[in-house]
Formats: sequence, C-alpha cells, structure tokens
Amino acid sequence: MIENAYYSPEFHGEYELVSIGRLELEEGGIIPDCQLAITTWGTLNAAKDNAILIPTWYSGTHQIWRDVYVGPQHALNPAQYFIVAINQIGNGLSISPHTATGPNAAIAMANFPRVRIGDDVVAQERLLRQHFGIERLQLVVGGSMGAQQTYEWAVRFPDKVLRAAPIAGTAQNTPHDYLFTETLNEAIWSDPGWNGGNYRSHTEVITGLQRQARLWAVMGFSTEFWKQEIWRGMDFDSKEAFLTGFLEPYFTAMDPNALLCMAWKWQHGDVSRHTNGDLAAALGRITARTFVMPINEDMFFPVRDCQAEQALIPGSELRVIDDLLGHLGLFGVAPTFIQQVDHHLSELLNTPV
Amino acid sequence: MIENAYYSPEFHGEYELVSIGRLELEEGGIIPDCQLAITTWGTLNAAKDNAILIPTWYSGTHQIWRDVYVGPQHALNPAQYFIVAINQIGNGLSISPHTATGPNAAIAMANFPRVRIGDDVVAQERLLRQHFGIERLQLVVGGSMGAQQTYEWAVRFPDKVLRAAPIAGTAQNTPHDYLFTETLNEAIWSDPGWNGGNYRSHTEVITGLQRQARLWAVMGFSTEFWKQEIWRGMDFDSKEAFLTGFLEPYFTAMDPNALLCMAWKWQHGDVSRHTNGDLAAALGRITARTFVMPINEDMFFPVRDCQAEQALIPGSELRVIDDLLGHLGLFGVAPTFIQQVDHHLSELLNTPV
Repeated sequence: MIENAYYSPEFHGEYELVSIGRLELEEGGIIPDCQLAITTWGTLNAAKDNAILIPTWYSGTHQIWRDVYVGPQHALNPAQYFIVAINQIGNGLSISPHTATGPNAAIAMANFPRVRIGDDVVAQERLLRQHFGIERLQLVVGGSMGAQQTYEWAVRFPDKVLRAAPIAGTAQNTPHDYLFTETLNEAIWSDPGWNGGNYRSHTEVITGLQRQARLWAVMGFSTEFWKQEIWRGMDFDSKEAFLTGFLEPYFTAMDPNALLCMAWKWQHGDVSRHTNGDLAAALGRITARTFVMPINEDMFFPVRDCQAEQALIPGSELRVIDDLLGHLGLFGVAPTFIQQVDHHLSELLNTPV
Repeated sequence: MIENAYYSPEFHGEYELVSIGRLELEEGGIIPDCQLAITTWGTLNAAKDNAILIPTWYSGTHQIWRDVYVGPQHALNPAQYFIVAINQIGNGLSISPHTATGPNAAIAMANFPRVRIGDDVVAQERLLRQHFGIERLQLVVGGSMGAQQTYEWAVRFPDKVLRAAPIAGTAQNTPHDYLFTETLNEAIWSDPGWNGGNYRSHTEVITGLQRQARLWAVMGFSTEFWKQEIWRGMDFDSKEAFLTGFLEPYFTAMDPNALLCMAWKWQHGDVSRHTNGDLAAALGRITARTFVMPINEDMFFPVRDCQAEQALIPGSELRVIDDLLGHLGLFGVAPTFIQQVDHHLSELLNTPV
C-alpha cells in the first residue's frame, strides 16, 4: 500500500467503494476482492430501467464526468436518469496495484495481474446487477478507454445495452495506437526509480511520469492546438508554462503501476476476441442504437479508424466532434465540445429503441 | 574522436570531405576547420549555371538521394545537371561532435557548439562558391530538415536560388514539431549511458537510441501505414520485426550527439529570423520559383502547415505528395513516391525563370 493523496475524495469528489468479490480474469489472474469506486447521480426508478453507465478513460476518473458532462443542463441529466460512473480497475480509485492490501495483498504492486477491458465490463455488469439490480442500460457512454469499454459492453451484452456512445475510441485497438501507448509505458519503464514496479513512492518515478506528460503533449493535442496557442485560453502564458503547470502536474500525481495497468488494457482492447478475430462479426452483434463519436483532430483515434468500425455496426451513425484540442478535447476545455456531445447524446437518448 | 563504422563510405558510398575553413556560428560558437562531406553527380558546365543543391535531413546523408532521387531516369538527372549533395553539419559525415579532432579538438563531443540552419546554408554557399565557383543554383531541393535549409537558401540568398522545392518541411518550425523533436532528444538524454554527451561509444547509448526509434515509429509513419501493414512490402512479417529489423538498427547505428546537434537545428529553424519574426516578410523575399511539397500523411509537417507558408511565397505552388508512409515516405519505399517527386521536379525544372 502506497499513500498517494491524489487518489482521494479531496481530489476526485465523493465516491463509494463497492466490492464485487472475487474476480477471475481473462488472462488467468485473480483479484481476490475486487473493489470498484463508483459515483452515482440521480435516482434509480422502480422499474430500474433508467440507468446510464459511464466507464472511465486512461488516467481519468469519474470526476471529469461530474465536472463537464453530467448535470441538469446536460444530456446526462440526473433529473431523468440514474447515472453510474464506475472507475476502471487499476485507475487508482478502484482496486489498483498500489492499493492492494488485506485480501488483495498478494497482487500488490508488480504482482498485479493483467486486466483486460472485458474484465472491467464483466465486473461492471456484476456490480450493476448485484448492487443495484440493474439488468439493462439506457446508455453506455465513455471516452477513449471508456469507448473501448462501451464497445465491449455492446458486443458482450447486446441485450443489456439499449444505446451506446463511444467517444474518441475504438472497438479494436489499432497497431499505431499500440505503439503510441508503448512509448507511454517506456517513459515509465526507463526511469530507474520505477524499479520493476516496486518503487516506494510514485515520486521516485517522477522523471518517467514527466516524460509521459511530454509524450501526451505531442499526441494528446493537435498540431493546431499548439500552433494557435489554444492553451492561452487555459490561462497559461507560454507553451512551457502549460507543460509544467498543467500536463506535468497532472501525470506526476499519478501512480506509475496504475498507468501501466490501464495502458496494457488499452493496448489489448479488441471486441473481436469474442468472434475469433472477426471484427465485422463482433460489431455485427451490436443491437444498441449507436452513435460513434470521434474527435476530428484526434491524432491516435483518427476519424477514419472510428468510421471504419462504425460502418460495421448495424443502424449506427457517425457523429464527428469538432475540437482543436484533439483527443484531450475530452477534458471539455472548449465550451463547444460539451455542446456537441450534449447535442448528439440528447438525440441518441430521445431515439426510441 | 569516436570510431563509428556507420559513418563511412562503406555505408554511405563515396563522398569527399571539403574544408571551408573557420566558420563563425550564429549562436556565437566557432568551428575552427569546417569540413563538409559532399557528393556530386554530373558535370559542371563552363558557365557554371547548371548546378542543383541537395541539403540533407535529420539522421540522413547524401546516400538516400543517390539511391532514390538522382539518376538518368529521374528529374535530378546528372546528364543535364551538376548535382551537389552537401551533408549538414553534425550529421556524422560532415564535421560532427564525435569526429572533431585536430584543429577541431576543442569542440569535440559535449563541447560541440550550437549550429543553426543558417550556419549550414552559409557554409554551403561558401563551399559552392569557393570550391566550384558556383554563384547561382538552378534548384535547391531537400526533404524535412533539407526543406528547412531550402527555405533558408531561398530567403537568405534570393538572387542565388532560381528554383526551390522544399519537401515535407517548413520554413518556420511549428511548436508541435518542436515538442515532438524534444521527445527524440529526451529519449537520448534519459539514457544514463549518454553521460551528458561524453560517452565513450555510441553503443553505450543504445537504449536511448532504441527509444528514439520507437518514437519515430509513432510519428514518422502514418496511422494507415501501421493499419494497412505497409511494412509487409518491405519484407518483414510482423510489426515487431519491422521495428527491431529496420527502425532500431537504423537509429542505433548513429551517434547520439550528432542526432542532438541536428535536432536543435531542426527545432530552431525559422526564416523569420531575417525579418524580426515577420514570417510573411521573410517568405515574401523569395524570388525562386517554388513548389511546396508536403506529404499528405505527414504527422508532424502536416499539409496545412506547409500550405500556410506556401500562401506567403510569391508565385509558388502547393504540390501535395500522396504517400501512406507519412513523413518517412521520404525514404522512397513506395514506388509512387519518387514518381510524384519526379513529376513535380521535372515540371519545376522545365519552368523558365
């Protein structure tokens, strides 16, 4: 157990830890006591049929959804829906390498098992069913790795997902994306302080985390973000100040093993595992009404990759989001970002299924 | 002096070392005896007005031009032109940190001074004039950092450049490009074997050079290059085999300080230094007939950045090259690449000026 104040309600707002018990993983490992950090908004109705699920992205938690996406003025409106955000395994709030203690002591730090997107989705389905009695979701919506989980939900549990909105992510990770993610890992691995995953504090790996932040600077935004100095709108007065005042503090606060756990999942996300590698067959299973929502300036989930998958999903639509921030437009910095998301999600939620 | 067999005629074909004497640099440093590695094709005519200059790109030498671009079947035809390729300062063949000995001993390794694109162009102009008596060039053509030098030539010596063909590069480096290049540097700096630039052999920095190769994998090609597995056409049977069999051997053969010297130049390339930061004024100086030739899938010299500069060059044209290899399409792997380059260069060379 490593103390890391970043993974606390102080930084992420209130959340609840829910145990779903023992979780056997696709890669063969076991999480003896799988605790998932969740947050809910709104009220589950008596029929238990007004639920929306939000899985989280790499390095993210439920908090950004509270800050940007959920509220009475948004499509994700707690007055109408019971909205559940479930933090992904290994994100620092749900069971993670640096928090594995007690019954999970055997999987602490470098001993943490490999987790797949499918494991998260299985865990989430169990939590929703056992903890809330939810058998069907009005919508699954997530960004980036949250989109991977959204696709996994729609393919694995087609009867349980009425609508799906994968934003800025793919159903099958691309080789380019794999290589990009590997450079993020390499930034950590190359720090002697990482020590094979058995550091004493994440601060021992600060150089590696800074390197990771610098890689995000190149791929996480768009070339135009830098050229047009969009960061000025975030109250920084130089590119360097933005890097050292925003991106670096963001990543250096995090746990390296947590990031590596999520990265492996991200790299190996692939719904075609359900259909012997046949992506068309896997996506053809989807019965959810699906809006595929790439961001036009995304450098590693480019529109064409998302569009190719969308074309394989029956009755789906491509809804491209226009945002110069690129992939990290997901942070909702540009006011026009959430407007577009709300527009598409409202239309999706108002579509009868 | 570090022995590195890569920087030899065995690997790069024949070249000649020409001294242009003492070179005072824009940043204040001095190269006591500036030796430039050059190769020529064809014959300089009596009027000395049939010369074409090729400056080189980051990590590159004249050799790729010999292999791909120059020949009787190409626009760069030695039967008609006297073609001079001049290796840039710090590229391992021309004077470089690891080759600085004798009169240059004071600038060996970590003591090598900062060099700018403008220093290269001044050195090249002197060499052409003093060594060959060439006062005017039919064409300057280069890719990537070679494009930066091409722009510098056209802005600095407008009367000496009749035609210019910057391929896959910019006149003013973009902030995104700066950040990308910084990750390449960081890959080297983060290797303890680099030792502040005073390693005993480039093999001590092999881990850092491998990291650099992996970064090139992400940004040097396009997302479609990986998705469509274009590397299969280069006789590799897996993505990993391509990385370990092509990209890694390519970069691990090189000298780390040489790469860092070139990277600094690349990052700080900016023709507007001639006009107090006014890019339009700088590009407005160009009298050369100019074809700006970005590659459509280039991830760090995107078409729109090149187009924005092209729009500022009087009488210029934008000629976009279609190549799924992205920036490293410059290697000429796709047969359609050189066909397009030849087409545009032939038209440019046949345009009266």
